[in-house]
Amino acid sequence: MSSLPKSIQNLIDQFAKLPGIGPKSASRITFYLLKNPSLIKDLTEAINGLKGEIKYCSLCYNLTDRDPCEICSNSKRDKSILCVVEEPLDIVAFEKTNRYDGLYFVLGGLLSPIDGIGPEKLRIKELLTRIKKDNLKEIILATSPNTEGEITANFIAKEINKNFPKKLKITRIARGLPIGADIEYADEITLSKALEGRKEIS
Amino acid sequence: MSSLPKSIQNLIDQFAKLPGIGPKSASRITFYLLKNPSLIKDLTEAINGLKGEIKYCSLCYNLTDRDPCEICSNSKRDKSILCVVEEPLDIVAFEKTNRYDGLYFVLGGLLSPIDGIGPEKLRIKELLTRIKKDNLKEIILATSPNTEGEITANFIAKEINKNFPKKLKITRIARGLPIGADIEYADEITLSKALEGRKEIS
Repeated sequence: MSSLPKSIQNLIDQFAKLPGIGPKSASRITFYLLKNPSLIKDLTEAINGLKGEIKYCSLCYNLTDRDPCEICSNSKRDKSILCVVEEPLDIVAFEKTNRYDGLYFVLGGLLSPIDGIGPEKLRIKELLTRIKKDNLKEIILATSPNTEGEITANFIAKEINKNFPKKLKITRIARGLPIGADIEYADEITLSKALEGRKEIS
Repeated sequence: MSSLPKSIQNLIDQFAKLPGIGPKSASRITFYLLKNPSLIKDLTEAINGLKGEIKYCSLCYNLTDRDPCEICSNSKRDKSILCVVEEPLDIVAFEKTNRYDGLYFVLGGLLSPIDGIGPEKLRIKELLTRIKKDNLKEIILATSPNTEGEITANFIAKEINKNFPKKLKITRIARGLPIGADIEYADEITLSKALEGRKEIS
């Protein structure tokens, strides 16, 4: 511990705060950077590049550097179908399947009474506003197939049915995904199957 | 892919270059940083803190912010015993055992004819100079117990015997470590055992 200069220990501590990086990986990364100073420059530039430029798309709430985002402003995409996801990373996963050409809507989380996350902390109002304005034929509820994801999907389905009875088809991605899994880690084929096998709710 | 802003994709690519981080972890880390802007500041400050300040100790070649380093300038350490390691991270591992109070010497690598790393690319000359100047009783060859580590330890033992016949005891850490392992990932107890069980070479 004390054998390391403070600035090195400090960087190790910072890396260890990131998800999936333990103290040993953090040491490895730090010493790797010390050996490869060109990477330090690239990394700091890339981190600084994030500042300011990135915002939420005003239509789908994906992270973007222009508003509306690339997907929302793409005229080739099917504007009658909306896929509701938890996080921007889930969009990346769906885009990789190359099997979906509709639009997205990022909720910004999942309902979790245990963590005090109620409907007011997600973009459910914004979603309802969007459904009111847009001419949607189908809404796919693509939250992860775990407890919070199911609760959230069911809650949203009820809200839509209450506010817009029979206006549009509400579907849920098929449980081709193993229960308890996380969408962003699913492989392309499983996700494709899940899209294909989606079923109408109620 | 195309669904991500360039600056985000760029940072993901940079993180994916670091050891032990794949493209999915890199995405996770990047989105985690986007959600926690305070971490971005801490991380960039920590990375910038590395610049300039860090140098090699002129005695042991450990990374340090003052010369000689904390270990070399500690009057309580046993200056008659020198532990030769491959990398600064190995020093961290030995220090964690709390079972060694001698000094260190960082070789800067291991002999690897297959990668074109010969004795001239390691600090073997510097090690011999140090042995000549210092009044050492023992030298512990603590390179990893893999092929390159064994070759390097044997080479150094021969060089020392050739240049300073019978001047000092040369030992090798015990193979309490499983063969093929990497010192920096060893646990404290295994490393302590390896220190205790060290044997004299030739």
